[in-house]
Amino acid sequence: MNKHEICWIEFTLNSNGTPQYSVYYGKDKAVLSSSMGFKLDQNISLTENFKVTKIDSTSVDETWKPVWGEVSQIRNHYKQLTVHLAQQGEKSILLDIIFKVFEDGVGFRYEFPSQPNLKSFIVRDEVTEFNMAGDHKAFWIPADFDSNEYKYTTSPLSQVDARKWGLISSGKIEVNIPDQYAVQTPLMLKAANGLYINIHEAALVDYSSMQMHVDRTNFKLTSSLVPDARGNKAYMRAPFKTPWRTIIVSNKATDILSSKIILNLNEPAKIENTSWIKPMKFMGVWWEMQVGKTSWNYTDQMDSLYLKGKYIPNGRHAANTANVKHYIDFASKNGIESLLVEGWNKVWEEWTDDKEDKFDFVTPYPDFDVKEISTYAKEKGVKMIMHNETGGGATSYERQMDTAFRFMNKYGYGSLKTGYVSGIIPHGEHHDGLWMVNHYIRSIKKAADYHVMIDIHEPTRPTGLQRTYPNFMASEAGRGNEWNFFADGNPPEHETILPFTRLIGGPMDYTPGIFKLRNYAPGVPDRQMHSTLAKQLALYVTMYSPLQMAADIPENYAAHMDAFKFIQDVAVDWDDTKIVEAEPGEFLTIARKAKGKVDWFIGAITGTNSRESVISLDFLDKNRTYMATIYEDGKDANWKTNPESYQIKKIKVTHKSVLKLLLAPGGGAAVSIKPINK
Amino acid sequence: MNKHEICWIEFTLNSNGTPQYSVYYGKDKAVLSSSMGFKLDQNISLTENFKVTKIDSTSVDETWKPVWGEVSQIRNHYKQLTVHLAQQGEKSILLDIIFKVFEDGVGFRYEFPSQPNLKSFIVRDEVTEFNMAGDHKAFWIPADFDSNEYKYTTSPLSQVDARKWGLISSGKIEVNIPDQYAVQTPLMLKAANGLYINIHEAALVDYSSMQMHVDRTNFKLTSSLVPDARGNKAYMRAPFKTPWRTIIVSNKATDILSSKIILNLNEPAKIENTSWIKPMKFMGVWWEMQVGKTSWNYTDQMDSLYLKGKYIPNGRHAANTANVKHYIDFASKNGIESLLVEGWNKVWEEWTDDKEDKFDFVTPYPDFDVKEISTYAKEKGVKMIMHNETGGGATSYERQMDTAFRFMNKYGYGSLKTGYVSGIIPHGEHHDGLWMVNHYIRSIKKAADYHVMIDIHEPTRPTGLQRTYPNFMASEAGRGNEWNFFADGNPPEHETILPFTRLIGGPMDYTPGIFKLRNYAPGVPDRQMHSTLAKQLALYVTMYSPLQMAADIPENYAAHMDAFKFIQDVAVDWDDTKIVEAEPGEFLTIARKAKGKVDWFIGAITGTNSRESVISLDFLDKNRTYMATIYEDGKDANWKTNPESYQIKKIKVTHKSVLKLLLAPGGGAAVSIKPINK
Repeated sequence: MNKHEICWIEFTLNSNGTPQYSVYYGKDKAVLSSSMGFKLDQNISLTENFKVTKIDSTSVDETWKPVWGEVSQIRNHYKQLTVHLAQQGEKSILLDIIFKVFEDGVGFRYEFPSQPNLKSFIVRDEVTEFNMAGDHKAFWIPADFDSNEYKYTTSPLSQVDARKWGLISSGKIEVNIPDQYAVQTPLMLKAANGLYINIHEAALVDYSSMQMHVDRTNFKLTSSLVPDARGNKAYMRAPFKTPWRTIIVSNKATDILSSKIILNLNEPAKIENTSWIKPMKFMGVWWEMQVGKTSWNYTDQMDSLYLKGKYIPNGRHAANTANVKHYIDFASKNGIESLLVEGWNKVWEEWTDDKEDKFDFVTPYPDFDVKEISTYAKEKGVKMIMHNETGGGATSYERQMDTAFRFMNKYGYGSLKTGYVSGIIPHGEHHDGLWMVNHYIRSIKKAADYHVMIDIHEPTRPTGLQRTYPNFMASEAGRGNEWNFFADGNPPEHETILPFTRLIGGPMDYTPGIFKLRNYAPGVPDRQMHSTLAKQLALYVTMYSPLQMAADIPENYAAHMDAFKFIQDVAVDWDDTKIVEAEPGEFLTIARKAKGKVDWFIGAITGTNSRESVISLDFLDKNRTYMATIYEDGKDANWKTNPESYQIKKIKVTHKSVLKLLLAPGGGAAVSIKPINK
Repeated sequence: MNKHEICWIEFTLNSNGTPQYSVYYGKDKAVLSSSMGFKLDQNISLTENFKVTKIDSTSVDETWKPVWGEVSQIRNHYKQLTVHLAQQGEKSILLDIIFKVFEDGVGFRYEFPSQPNLKSFIVRDEVTEFNMAGDHKAFWIPADFDSNEYKYTTSPLSQVDARKWGLISSGKIEVNIPDQYAVQTPLMLKAANGLYINIHEAALVDYSSMQMHVDRTNFKLTSSLVPDARGNKAYMRAPFKTPWRTIIVSNKATDILSSKIILNLNEPAKIENTSWIKPMKFMGVWWEMQVGKTSWNYTDQMDSLYLKGKYIPNGRHAANTANVKHYIDFASKNGIESLLVEGWNKVWEEWTDDKEDKFDFVTPYPDFDVKEISTYAKEKGVKMIMHNETGGGATSYERQMDTAFRFMNKYGYGSLKTGYVSGIIPHGEHHDGLWMVNHYIRSIKKAADYHVMIDIHEPTRPTGLQRTYPNFMASEAGRGNEWNFFADGNPPEHETILPFTRLIGGPMDYTPGIFKLRNYAPGVPDRQMHSTLAKQLALYVTMYSPLQMAADIPENYAAHMDAFKFIQDVAVDWDDTKIVEAEPGEFLTIARKAKGKVDWFIGAITGTNSRESVISLDFLDKNRTYMATIYEDGKDANWKTNPESYQIKKIKVTHKSVLKLLLAPGGGAAVSIKPINK
């Protein structure tokens, strides 16, 4: 990295004694002078009247190895500045601000040291500003307290409008999105001078999620914490450390994606024995319900069991033993390691209300023979993935967790997908609020106690905690592939934006790999994927996750086994990652080296426009010759009119080769590169 | 009971189709025509436009035996009227009202049958009226959502003012007592014509507690349900039954106290094997902390452990092994079955804030050797009572419950006192709201799973659930003896009102038996009990509970071992109970026959005024001669000036005897009557 392209900061107290920071990238100001502080309960304002009592500085340059990841080694190289502040006055309050300045950005957190005048206190508001230098182009979704599943809008900051879209979360817009001018983080920005700025947070623990209020006139962003049922943001007892506020900055979009700031700001793994944690691919008895062919529930009559004494089956229940075995057979035959089954347990026909105890996590519907299925899966070498949908009933789930995990251990389920569809209980709490933030972590820790990997759907967006809890494999917390059935879907640029936004904090269970791209939903003929088939393959590389789903049904894969070969081959854990080219909203090309192997995989995607992706293979081993298998859009491919047109070709390549891949509108390309002489 | 003194009801639909009921007692109207109904979510109003589709009636006369109680057999004799209503309109909603009419009152509940147009719904308000015939004298406490620990005010309904007192619960008065003209139930009323009316509820399950809004001009009372964090009152799924609304009515105050309506309206015991449930007396390492001699916490420095790595003891910690053994010795020597120890576990020095995880329920402070203590107690034949203070952190407690109960089982704790001092977590929920109502029941059920008896402090006031869950021995939910240290105490009439109010729903752990009635609190010389010593003894009979505490410290009992003899002797479970005389606010005399024995015990108490209690012993066995031991106020006794003056005399009595007991101002008398020839 060029010396002029290094991030640095400036800290000052203004004339009122307000702490302020600025972030520079080379000579450019990435963040103009911005105030910091808090409003606490009992009318305590920690926004001015501070004096600096001491400044400590240190620097660190170390390397660590993640249990799994995009790279096998991560360098943690930063300068640290600890500013010790004391608020003047009769009852002086101490506040420390710790900055870690990396080459590609900065993280800072507040620390309340143990002190005589502040023991236990409530955070009413955190007033951290991120003062932008101009009306930057922003890639944003609304600051909904309960959902991240919005389409991204690309607009100047001056045009942010969180109520532009209909409410997606369950509830009321005035409760879930009270601030019309607030957006979710990670927030991706691009300045007119070409500077890329990403704002998020790291290590979100015992604190509520940070969203951003946008001053549309002055382009000043202010932290806006998700309130709890009482309107509070955090309950603290000194000493206490807030999450890190992160600003990744570079004049190259690719640097934003390769930044390891978020991971570096999280604590090292707290799980000692990680031998049971293994990235993997999986199929699911899932898409067939999503598209309405079959159902999660065994019966359609809410009260059929307890009223009439027996179930009245609807005849459409997907999670029946025979169908599950059919999936196991396909997965086993085609080398997909594991299988998720949703809708296997009681009581899917009854959970959509506000009652607290929505689900039973250990009682199968009568047509799901858990013992027979787990025995069969074991014989076939397929691992079963448990599914615990809570319907948002988090207190109920906490009461049943031990029972649920013992059930998983008993039947050999080594991984778990949880879900929080619908409103949260405790009533008045939000998906992204303090209570749920801690709940998700409790679920991760509990899973670790039972050696279960976890994939959380509908949590707050991740903040790098997968470093600390490496059994936290993935989460949804964003608009996944399923929206191509739910509504008008994900526009072609969607997957070029997600890595710059949602995935900045951690892997996403996006559920790629839909091969039947049109006419998949009975009765809804206008639904289609905004993607070509080749792009669906490319997503296995561009959309990083150590758990990757092959989301389509076996029949749709059987129709394209040549293309399915890429899904079979592609790795899920990596030694190295090269962000070849990237522009949010436009295109993204990534090359990754499979962990412990010499194989490389490339994914290249484009948004609405067709393009040619030119990829120098200079990252390949100089001493080897490879066979590249290229899964490319057909000449006539187009996401809208001809999405399933693709071609597969093989060519020999070396580190001197340059690939030219043609991407159709809404298209992509996937490449597997394997050495000819192993 | 005279035929003219029997309760009956009238049900009508008015011209708007509003369901209305009236309650008569003989020829008197106890409740004038009063409307019934609900307001649901989605603007559904269930208050008018109803038609009666069918009326069913039946009658029941049966007898059942409680596991423990004031009597060994209970007659359940009522006429039942089931009114099936259908609201007219396009989407007809069905609502049934079930009345059970007893001789001494009425209970009614709403039932939502399974129906096509109402599946899951939210109760925004229940609008059940209790329309009084006049400006009755009321014995009331404020309708605080989080505390029942107020002094009772005796005033006409027209002078109810819930904000007359300072807020007792933790929080804000506008949040905890939003309605200035609302009172708690059980509400005791006395009409000018001498009719006694008691309004409460039975079988409160999956619904929020009912309080009463008072129309001070028209004397109309309206149900007011405690809201949850979202302002809702209940989340229902048809079929659903509300708790019973109860109106006990009689022209005799004694009948109110002997009514079994509340128990009869609760479901039979759901616990099959009840052999482990045993009423008992207990002492406690408790009063010495209450009065400030010693402390619950081991250290006074909140952060001493995790900040400095070790505790800094305060030297005042009561729950240390030596002190606990001292109590065990006293209890063992004097035949008190069990011992409660509070403040034994971490982290009492840190729990008074809003953080969720307040207590650890299995880790003792370093000076409490749980193994040594439980072994010692077993050797000495004393049962240990566990204490789990949650600080209101109910979610945290639910997560730790199994661990806590396993710990109890391991160390031989067969009973448990829980506590909910301070604000509730989930934040925004209330002690008396839906979520906590269900939480208390969950704790009772969990205790039953582990064969542990439970005594809940700071729950909602009881509604007879001890019939269904007979391990639910007692609760506080009222202003106990401890308030004689906390503040200006409980006025002398307090214990004559409690049986008509708080105890209507179930036993109270009032903690009687304080023998040192003045100068018990170091540094607070003005604190004194509003009671004589003899009255403290009488409370063991007048204040019914199957768990009765001998609340004072061993040294104070050692100073009066002759009086302590009554506490040793008095029973805690009964074959029969005679309410000899009663007037709320004035006096109360009760005689009870010990279960399975021929011994009788009498307690007589008075309020502020001295009085002579004349008791005919005609309930005694005609064929026996008994020795009565009378524990009476001394001639010069007076709660204020000479509370510890008492005399003990023995006289032979038969069923023809009449006792005349002289009660000092704020005084009482206790009598044990044992057969001379057993």
